[in-house]
Amino acid sequence: MKAYQQLEQKFIELDHLKQLAQLANWDEAVMMPTGAGEMRAKVMGTLMSLRHQKLISDEMANLLQAAEQESLEHAWQQRNFDLMKKRYQNATCLPETLVAKITQTNMSCEQAWRQMRAQNNWQDFKPLLQKVVDLTKESAEIRSQTFNKAPYDVLIDDHSPDLSMEIIDPIFDQLKTVLPDLIQRIVSKQQSRNIQPIVGPFAIAKQKALGLALMKTIGFNFTHGRLDVSHHPFCDGGPEDIRITTRYEENNFIPAAMGVCHETGHAMYELGLPKDWMEQPVGKATSMALHESQSLLIEMQVCRNQAFMPYFTELARQHLGDLPHLNPENLYYHYTQVTPSFIRVDADEVTYPLHVILRYEIEKQLIAGEITVNDLPAIWDEKMQRYLHLDTKNNFKEGIMQDVHWPAGLFGYFPAYTFGALIAAQLFQKACQDNTEIMPQINQGNFSLLLTWLRQHVHRFGSLYDWQTLLKKATGEQLNTRYYLDHVKRRYL
Amino acid sequence: MKAYQQLEQKFIELDHLKQLAQLANWDEAVMMPTGAGEMRAKVMGTLMSLRHQKLISDEMANLLQAAEQESLEHAWQQRNFDLMKKRYQNATCLPETLVAKITQTNMSCEQAWRQMRAQNNWQDFKPLLQKVVDLTKESAEIRSQTFNKAPYDVLIDDHSPDLSMEIIDPIFDQLKTVLPDLIQRIVSKQQSRNIQPIVGPFAIAKQKALGLALMKTIGFNFTHGRLDVSHHPFCDGGPEDIRITTRYEENNFIPAAMGVCHETGHAMYELGLPKDWMEQPVGKATSMALHESQSLLIEMQVCRNQAFMPYFTELARQHLGDLPHLNPENLYYHYTQVTPSFIRVDADEVTYPLHVILRYEIEKQLIAGEITVNDLPAIWDEKMQRYLHLDTKNNFKEGIMQDVHWPAGLFGYFPAYTFGALIAAQLFQKACQDNTEIMPQINQGNFSLLLTWLRQHVHRFGSLYDWQTLLKKATGEQLNTRYYLDHVKRRYL
Repeated sequence: MKAYQQLEQKFIELDHLKQLAQLANWDEAVMMPTGAGEMRAKVMGTLMSLRHQKLISDEMANLLQAAEQESLEHAWQQRNFDLMKKRYQNATCLPETLVAKITQTNMSCEQAWRQMRAQNNWQDFKPLLQKVVDLTKESAEIRSQTFNKAPYDVLIDDHSPDLSMEIIDPIFDQLKTVLPDLIQRIVSKQQSRNIQPIVGPFAIAKQKALGLALMKTIGFNFTHGRLDVSHHPFCDGGPEDIRITTRYEENNFIPAAMGVCHETGHAMYELGLPKDWMEQPVGKATSMALHESQSLLIEMQVCRNQAFMPYFTELARQHLGDLPHLNPENLYYHYTQVTPSFIRVDADEVTYPLHVILRYEIEKQLIAGEITVNDLPAIWDEKMQRYLHLDTKNNFKEGIMQDVHWPAGLFGYFPAYTFGALIAAQLFQKACQDNTEIMPQINQGNFSLLLTWLRQHVHRFGSLYDWQTLLKKATGEQLNTRYYLDHVKRRYL
Repeated sequence: MKAYQQLEQKFIELDHLKQLAQLANWDEAVMMPTGAGEMRAKVMGTLMSLRHQKLISDEMANLLQAAEQESLEHAWQQRNFDLMKKRYQNATCLPETLVAKITQTNMSCEQAWRQMRAQNNWQDFKPLLQKVVDLTKESAEIRSQTFNKAPYDVLIDDHSPDLSMEIIDPIFDQLKTVLPDLIQRIVSKQQSRNIQPIVGPFAIAKQKALGLALMKTIGFNFTHGRLDVSHHPFCDGGPEDIRITTRYEENNFIPAAMGVCHETGHAMYELGLPKDWMEQPVGKATSMALHESQSLLIEMQVCRNQAFMPYFTELARQHLGDLPHLNPENLYYHYTQVTPSFIRVDADEVTYPLHVILRYEIEKQLIAGEITVNDLPAIWDEKMQRYLHLDTKNNFKEGIMQDVHWPAGLFGYFPAYTFGALIAAQLFQKACQDNTEIMPQINQGNFSLLLTWLRQHVHRFGSLYDWQTLLKKATGEQLNTRYYLDHVKRRYL
C-alpha cells in the first residue's frame, strides 16, 4: 500500500477517536450525572493523550515523509495530505503531558464554571481560569515558534485557519467606527415601533415541538441527528450523527426558537459535508468562521427575515396556540429588536460584533501577556461601558463569566462569529442573486432552493479550499464588509 | 517506579477506554439517531482494537514479567496482578483483526436485530447471527487451547469467572427435575386466587416517576446515575456513572416497575464497589453471576416480597392514582403470578430457570458444533414444548429472537441469571438471619439495613474474591440450591 493510503487509514482511526471525544463532550453537557465529572475529565485526558500519541508517532512521521515522494492521483488528496501535515506539525511540538493537562484542566474549569456562573462567583472561578490561560499560553507559545507566527494567531488558526490579526484588525476597526453610530440611529428609529409582548408561560414541551418543526422546515435530517437541552447551546458531531442543543425560558419562546435555527444552520453544514471524505481532514468544515457563517445565514439572513415571518407565525401558532400579538409584524419586531445588552448569545446582529470585538481585544492582550486574569473584570467593564454603555461591575454572571469559551479553553474562537456574520451576508446576497426563487420559497417555508445553493457552493467542498478561496469561488469576490453593513441598513434603517 | 505500579497506570488507561466503550454502547441503545449505526460500529471497532493493542503490547508483556519478581505490599495487589495476567492471556491469543471483526459484526447484528425482531424476520436475521456464532466459536476455540478448557467454558468464564459446565450441569439437572412438578402444583394452587386486573392506560411520564421513586427508595444515588428507556432493559457504567434503562407498556405498569427494581439492584452493586480500586481489575464486579444475584435479590427477594407490598402500593397510588384493585394483596398476586410464558425477561422466578436451562443447553451444543444456527428454531420449539408446554413455531419474535444476548455475541452469559437467583436466595436468607430488623425496615420502605449488609458482605470486595469464596465468607456455606427452592416453596405453595 502506498504511504499516502496508509495515512488515510491512520487518519480514519484518529477521526474515530475524535468522534468518541465529541460523543463524550455532548454527553457531558447533556446527559451525564454531575457526580461523574471528575472521572469524565480523566477519561477525556486519556483519550486525547492517546490520540495525540498516535498523531505524533514515529510511524506517522515516516509515512508523512514517504508520502512526500509519492504522486497523488487527485487534487483533494494533495489538500488532504497538506492538512495531515499541518495537524502533525501542530501536535509534534506539544509534549503529551501538556496535552493531557490541557484537556483535564479545561474540562474541570468548564464543569466548575457551570456552578460558579450561577452563583456569580468570580473569586473561586478566577484561579481555575488562570490555569486554563496559563496552559493555553504555554501551548500557543510553543507552537508560535514552529509556525513562526504570533501566539494569538496560532490560537485563531486553531479554529479559523487562514484568519489572523492582520486580517481581523482593519475589519474590526472599521466596524468599531461604524457600528456605535448606526446602533444609536437604529435604537432611536425603533422607539416608534409599537412592539407588543407575547405573554407566556410557554411549556417546554411545546417549545421543543416548535423547535423540531423549525428544524424540519430548514431540512434537518432526524435520521442523523437530535435536539436536546444544555446550559450553553451547541452543535456537535459530524455528517452521520449531528446533535444540536438549546435552552428554554418558560416566559419567552423567542430565544430558544432562534437558537434552534442557529444551531440547525451549523448542522446543515455538517450534514452537507462530502460523504466520500467523511473521515479525512479534507472532509471536515474548512473553518469555524465559515461554520458560523452557515448558522448565521440560516438564523439572521433567513429566519429573522421579514419574508419568513408569516410562515414562522403559523408554526408558532400551531405549537403555542393562537396567542394575542402572535402575528408576523409583531414577531418581526421581536426578532429585529436592537438593544445593547449583556449577553452575547442573545444579542441582536447589530450589537453582536461589539461583543466579539470586546472579547477579541481582551484575548489579544491576555495572550500577549499585557494583562492578567486579575485585570479582566475591570477591562471588561470599561469596554462594555465604551461600546454598549452598560455597567457590568460585580455582575460576573452576565459579564465576564457568561461564555463557555474561556473556561473551555477556546481562545481565538470569537472572531469566527463576526467573520461568520460578514461571510453570511455576502453568501446570502449572492445566493438570492443567482436564484431569484429562493426568497419567494422561503416566504412559503420552503428552504430547498437555498439548501441546494449552499450544498453546491459551500457544503460539498469540505476543507478542499480555505475560506477565502471558497468565498471567492462562491461569490466572485473577496470578503467585503459592505454586504453585512448594507444588510443592516436595509433591515434596520 | 515498580513494574507493578506501572501496570496499575496501564490498567487505568485500559479502564478509561472501557468506560468510553460503555458510554458509546449506552448512547447507541438509548440516544443515537438510527442513521449513525454503521459509523458507530466502525468507531467501536477502532476503540476495541486499540484497547486490545494496548493490552497485548510488548510493554505490557515486559511489565507483567518484571512484576512477577516483585513482592507486593497488599493482598489486593496480588489479586489485582493475577486478574491483569488473566486479561493479558485472554487477549494475547486473539489476533487484533479478529477482535475488531467481532466488535463490528456483533454491533451490526444487534442493530439489525432491533428491526428484524419487530418484523419477526428470522430469515434475514439468520445469516447475521451465523456470522456472530462463527466468530464467537473462533475466539472460544483459540482461547480454549490457551486455557486448556472447553470452548464453551471459556465463554462462560468471560462473564462468570470460576463457573463452568462441571458446576452448572448437576445444578441445572436438579432444577430440571424439580421445577416442572413444582410449577404444576403452583399453577393449580394459584387458580383459586382472586386476582383482579389493574386497568390502564398508565402514562409513560407517570410510570417513569414511579420508577424514579422506587430507585430512590432502594437507595440509588442520582448524582452518579440516571434512568432512561431502551429496547432491552440494561445497566451500564461504573461506580461514578451508572445508568439503567427500562421499557414501558402503556397498559401495564407492572413489568417496567419491577424492571427498574431489577436494574437498580445491579446499579447498587456498582455504586458500592470499592472506590480505592475503582479503575483496576480488582475493583470490578467479581462475576456476572454475582451481579445478577444483586439485581435478583432486590427484585425477587425484596421488591416482590409480601412485606414490601404495602409501601409499594402507596408509591404506586401516589404516582398512578388511587385505582381500583391497586391494593397490597392484589399487587402481590400480580407480582407473584406463576405462568409459563414466552419471554424470559418477563418470566416469574419459578419458570425463569427453565428459560435459562433451555438457552444453556442450546449454547452448549451450538458452541460444541453439534447443531447449527439453521437448527435453532426447531430445537427452541422442542425445548419450549418440553419445559413450558408452549408452542413457538414461526413465532421468532417471542421465541429465538427475543433476547439481545445472541445478536450481541454474549454466549455463555445465561447461566449467570440462574446462578444469580440461587446466590440471591442464599445471601438474603443470611442477611435477614444476621439482622432481624431488615425485614421490618423493608416493610416500611427502608432499605438501609439491607444495603449496609450488602455493602459489608458483598459490594465492597469488588473482585478481591471469586464468587464461591465470597459466598462462603458471606453465608458460611457453599452454594446450596436449598435456599432458592425453600424460598419458592414458602412463597408459592
